[in-house]
Amino acid sequence: MTRDLYRLIFAPESIVIVGASADPSKTSSRPLRYLVEGGYKGRIYPINPRAEEIAGVKCWASLADLPEAPDLAFILLSADAAIDAVAECGRAGVGAAMILASGFGESGADGHAREQRLAEVARASGVRILGPSCLGLANLHQGMILTGNAAFAEKGLVTGGVFCASQSGSMIGALLSRGRSKGVNFAGLISVGGELDLSLGALCEATLDDPAITSYMLFLETIRDAPAIRRFAVGAAERGKPVVALKLGRSSAAAELTTSHTGGLAGEDDVADAFLADCGIVRVETLEALLEAGALARRVPAKVRPVPTVGVVTTTGGGAALVVDQLGMRGVNVEGPNEATLEAIRATGVDVGAGRIADLTLAGTRYDTMKAGLEAMLASPQYDLVVTVVGSSARFQPEVAVKPIVDIGSGDGRLATFIVPEAPEALAMLAAAGIPAFRTPEACADSVAAVLRRRAPRALDLPAKISGPITILDEIEGYDLLKGLGIANAPARAIPLGDEADPALLPAAVKIVGRDMAHKTDVGGVVLGVKTAEDFHDAVSRIRDSLAAKAPDFPLTRVVQQRMALGAVGEVLLGYRVDPQVGPMVLVAAGGVMTEILQDRAIRMAPVDLETAHRMLGELRSLPLLTGFRGKAAGDLDAVASAIVALSQLVLNPQVDELEINPLMVMPEGQGALAVDVVARLHNI
Amino acid sequence: MTRDLYRLIFAPESIVIVGASADPSKTSSRPLRYLVEGGYKGRIYPINPRAEEIAGVKCWASLADLPEAPDLAFILLSADAAIDAVAECGRAGVGAAMILASGFGESGADGHAREQRLAEVARASGVRILGPSCLGLANLHQGMILTGNAAFAEKGLVTGGVFCASQSGSMIGALLSRGRSKGVNFAGLISVGGELDLSLGALCEATLDDPAITSYMLFLETIRDAPAIRRFAVGAAERGKPVVALKLGRSSAAAELTTSHTGGLAGEDDVADAFLADCGIVRVETLEALLEAGALARRVPAKVRPVPTVGVVTTTGGGAALVVDQLGMRGVNVEGPNEATLEAIRATGVDVGAGRIADLTLAGTRYDTMKAGLEAMLASPQYDLVVTVVGSSARFQPEVAVKPIVDIGSGDGRLATFIVPEAPEALAMLAAAGIPAFRTPEACADSVAAVLRRRAPRALDLPAKISGPITILDEIEGYDLLKGLGIANAPARAIPLGDEADPALLPAAVKIVGRDMAHKTDVGGVVLGVKTAEDFHDAVSRIRDSLAAKAPDFPLTRVVQQRMALGAVGEVLLGYRVDPQVGPMVLVAAGGVMTEILQDRAIRMAPVDLETAHRMLGELRSLPLLTGFRGKAAGDLDAVASAIVALSQLVLNPQVDELEINPLMVMPEGQGALAVDVVARLHNI
Repeated sequence: MTRDLYRLIFAPESIVIVGASADPSKTSSRPLRYLVEGGYKGRIYPINPRAEEIAGVKCWASLADLPEAPDLAFILLSADAAIDAVAECGRAGVGAAMILASGFGESGADGHAREQRLAEVARASGVRILGPSCLGLANLHQGMILTGNAAFAEKGLVTGGVFCASQSGSMIGALLSRGRSKGVNFAGLISVGGELDLSLGALCEATLDDPAITSYMLFLETIRDAPAIRRFAVGAAERGKPVVALKLGRSSAAAELTTSHTGGLAGEDDVADAFLADCGIVRVETLEALLEAGALARRVPAKVRPVPTVGVVTTTGGGAALVVDQLGMRGVNVEGPNEATLEAIRATGVDVGAGRIADLTLAGTRYDTMKAGLEAMLASPQYDLVVTVVGSSARFQPEVAVKPIVDIGSGDGRLATFIVPEAPEALAMLAAAGIPAFRTPEACADSVAAVLRRRAPRALDLPAKISGPITILDEIEGYDLLKGLGIANAPARAIPLGDEADPALLPAAVKIVGRDMAHKTDVGGVVLGVKTAEDFHDAVSRIRDSLAAKAPDFPLTRVVQQRMALGAVGEVLLGYRVDPQVGPMVLVAAGGVMTEILQDRAIRMAPVDLETAHRMLGELRSLPLLTGFRGKAAGDLDAVASAIVALSQLVLNPQVDELEINPLMVMPEGQGALAVDVVARLHNI
Repeated sequence: MTRDLYRLIFAPESIVIVGASADPSKTSSRPLRYLVEGGYKGRIYPINPRAEEIAGVKCWASLADLPEAPDLAFILLSADAAIDAVAECGRAGVGAAMILASGFGESGADGHAREQRLAEVARASGVRILGPSCLGLANLHQGMILTGNAAFAEKGLVTGGVFCASQSGSMIGALLSRGRSKGVNFAGLISVGGELDLSLGALCEATLDDPAITSYMLFLETIRDAPAIRRFAVGAAERGKPVVALKLGRSSAAAELTTSHTGGLAGEDDVADAFLADCGIVRVETLEALLEAGALARRVPAKVRPVPTVGVVTTTGGGAALVVDQLGMRGVNVEGPNEATLEAIRATGVDVGAGRIADLTLAGTRYDTMKAGLEAMLASPQYDLVVTVVGSSARFQPEVAVKPIVDIGSGDGRLATFIVPEAPEALAMLAAAGIPAFRTPEACADSVAAVLRRRAPRALDLPAKISGPITILDEIEGYDLLKGLGIANAPARAIPLGDEADPALLPAAVKIVGRDMAHKTDVGGVVLGVKTAEDFHDAVSRIRDSLAAKAPDFPLTRVVQQRMALGAVGEVLLGYRVDPQVGPMVLVAAGGVMTEILQDRAIRMAPVDLETAHRMLGELRSLPLLTGFRGKAAGDLDAVASAIVALSQLVLNPQVDELEINPLMVMPEGQGALAVDVVARLHNI
């Protein structure tokens, strides 16, 4: 009998609760009570040596006494005792164990040691671990509510199709109650805790074929086990189950200390953002949208939309303007009906003026008018989506104001509705019909923007990365690596100390060269504008003097002479990096001053294609500097984009940890782009 | 008997409804019905020649028949008929008339002509006008509900202290119902319409001494009659009545066409933002915060806080992180308790770890623990405000989770609460106690950030601006104007054509000079880097040739020779402008490329003091370029700040419409800042 992960965790036939309390005021009394009250159909084994039975269920003195090997254990003991319990679970043949206790990795040296110990015990015992700091889970369709979260005392829960996985245990309770108030009902919820063994991605992946689940909701604090999240996201897309995520950390600047800019320019949240987008996950920014965006995502296909475009139909100008404003702030184009669309609307007998909003005014509060106007807007090829904004009639005459939206939207309309007044009845009518409806203009715009930005996920199967001691290649080695990718550099060669300048490489930059040397300028190891053989001599002397003072141990046996990239239009920084959380990413940043001061950059998961590389360039605010600014020539952006694509192919080289070209000189159109410095960090050279 | 504005509009003793309909399905039947049902105590005169009585109130055939001169008229007729009715109101001695009809200024040439006519008739009749497009108003404490808004059919309205003024008529209904659901109750609401005569500011000002009003809520689409808004805001602050505003237009880029950058760099919404801040108005960005921020603003004094700092106390880490994230995005510093505060908390017997959030964990769900923790945080001098975040216990045990907050907050605590789960009871308990409570982390952070950014309003009484034909001064005249303000320029003088270069002004820039010449470079009228007398000669020839080709009519009789500001660290742009909506403003922008590409700038209403000027500089993202970037000298920011202050004194010169210094060269510390070009636009030269 194989017990797959889904069976063990989400549909266990038997559950053991280690440390079940008979005292109803204690958290550790809840899981058993919930299971019984929820009508769980499997077998329950409370372990409590001091009780005969709790809530009518027979108690057992220890795991060793059980008559069968349970699928799942919920361990409610303190941290150290929990580790021992895992070992006992192993002996008793338990499949998976959830650990409630905290006090592991997150809490200092003690916690770290404890985490190590837990990992070892788990490995030895063969028990899969959920947690630590796991507040439990619920499979509502099976009445299996196995959690200590007080929120699950909720009576009369309605089951639904949403599965929620959260890195914060307390949030599953809050999402449960908030969802209920909006008619967003759950198939299941899980608190994934510290993800020591089973990760959020792996757990969600295990649920993919549960027919009761129609969409996913993720509450993330960070990204752990990115490959599993990607596999899950790809599987969810294949099954038409959208994934919506809220991730904390938007505001943390958290520049890391690295030998390059690439790390500092791509903070934890930025790379997470690129990763979630690459996985086709709808990332929202507001708590309400986390609950509300799923219904919308189910109706709108994943697709690359360079400028997502939305039409707005309303009977209330002021209320509609609220949404239009919020959409504009999020980069969504709100476009008035064009002539053809206007004619189509008017052909239905509805009068509507030209403008950014299709305002049906008070006349639109009639069923036929709203229905006809809405149909005409939805039929227009202009729009990715149509937003209806309903005024006070939603509160006082929901049957008139909301009925046409329900009737149209019950087809497969790309339709979202914002209700301006407080109108719980109207919201309930829409929710019951599965039509995306929003209480606030912010959550509406957040959801619409996030859903329209969603691309199809990419399945990636990259070679495993090597890890080991890191070496920074010397500049010439770096250029060789670039050459292999097809990225050109300004001509350069190493000149042994004492030799003459290479006249073919003048005017030149003269630089020290050596491995593990990331900051040549800091030790006075770079001289620019070397025009003659004599200049070259002087430059080498100056470098020698400077090194004597600043880096006397540096073995100066040769220098790099590199021809200056004259006539460049501007410069950019290109970076490739294997992010410890999300994996290989590629970055382009505005060069020079712009890089350091403005953090003007675009990030994607590697590899990227040429179209994506061009789109990255388009995201730079300072792009105009490279496209013919103030009478300058336009730069060769095709060459820059090709270099981005080439750099991103480093995913195939498992040794490369990080590579930064800073700067890549952008030559005039048709003349390419040339690396004039490179820092490449490789494992196990 | 004087009838002041308050009496006429908000406490009329008699009301005439022109065009009251007997058909209850019509909008024009509503005002009379609402008045009667609301229990309005004054006298009502419906004008309807075809009805004897409506809703038990005797009808009158015409305004001429009335037995008294009513305070207020509500004119429900179509646009043209409404104008005639205003004339009749004048003859009947009516004090003020509200006009429901639209079709005036906003709708093309016809509308404009109609608006002109209405303005003339109103002036001649002596009747004050509210509207057009005015959906009416309500003074709930007097049962005076005089509106066509369907939302006022609401039964059992609770009266409160909020007065709402809105430029969108439909929004007063939506805000009424949304407020009700949150326990935010109104003293009155008004739809101000097109503000042809009585402006939003003037109307609010008239209500300032109504003791029933404790705070204001504004829904703005634009700024009209800025001086009245300022007077109202100052009066409200004097009476301790906070003003919260939501203004649409955040997303409209709307760069205006002007002869300078200053207009393009300061869009409609940007200057509105500066204006509202200067008036001490709390500008929020979310619809929920518009309703919720007032309670918070009543507790937190207006004050300049360079870095607003907030403490967070919670029993639920994940939920608290939601607020922390949102606060961080809005520039609020969330700081963990320092050692002294930690000690104070622990002294009360509460255990709390060090970190960015004071997490009382599950232990904090006890009344005594939360109360003690909260008291200690509020007593800490670290914080401008303390945010409590309450988890699922708010839903299941509000008496435990929320009671300590009510008990502490009923004092004058600088306290805000975010409730993570759906917990209407908890929210109601807090609202009833007048304690700021928030349903979403976004509205919570929005309110906290906006309230902590609020300064005390400035009362300004500036000389009236002149309007008339505009002249752009020539460069030398411009420098003279700057000299009068105390702003230096790089030494320059006009050299008659044919004369030699002034050797004291070498190296130099040579420029054409003349009035109404804003774009010298476009016609080849500027040569830089003129080092010798011979260079000067050549430069003049080149300019002559270029003008012959590009501007043959330009009267070239002299040129400006200006010594180049060698050794400058960088440059900025300074602008002064009388904005047509909000009045005189001053702007500093990053110079050169940064100005054009990045719109990196800071705006304030003029005049400003030195501290404010320094704060403006601090807002520039590219400020590091001026403070010693990459080994450069630090620039003389004191001189730049002084120049901003000096420029802002142009408020005292009623002729100046706009003045731009571009660039102002920033010399090294202690060496000042020098204008090297100036464009000054003056009226009636």
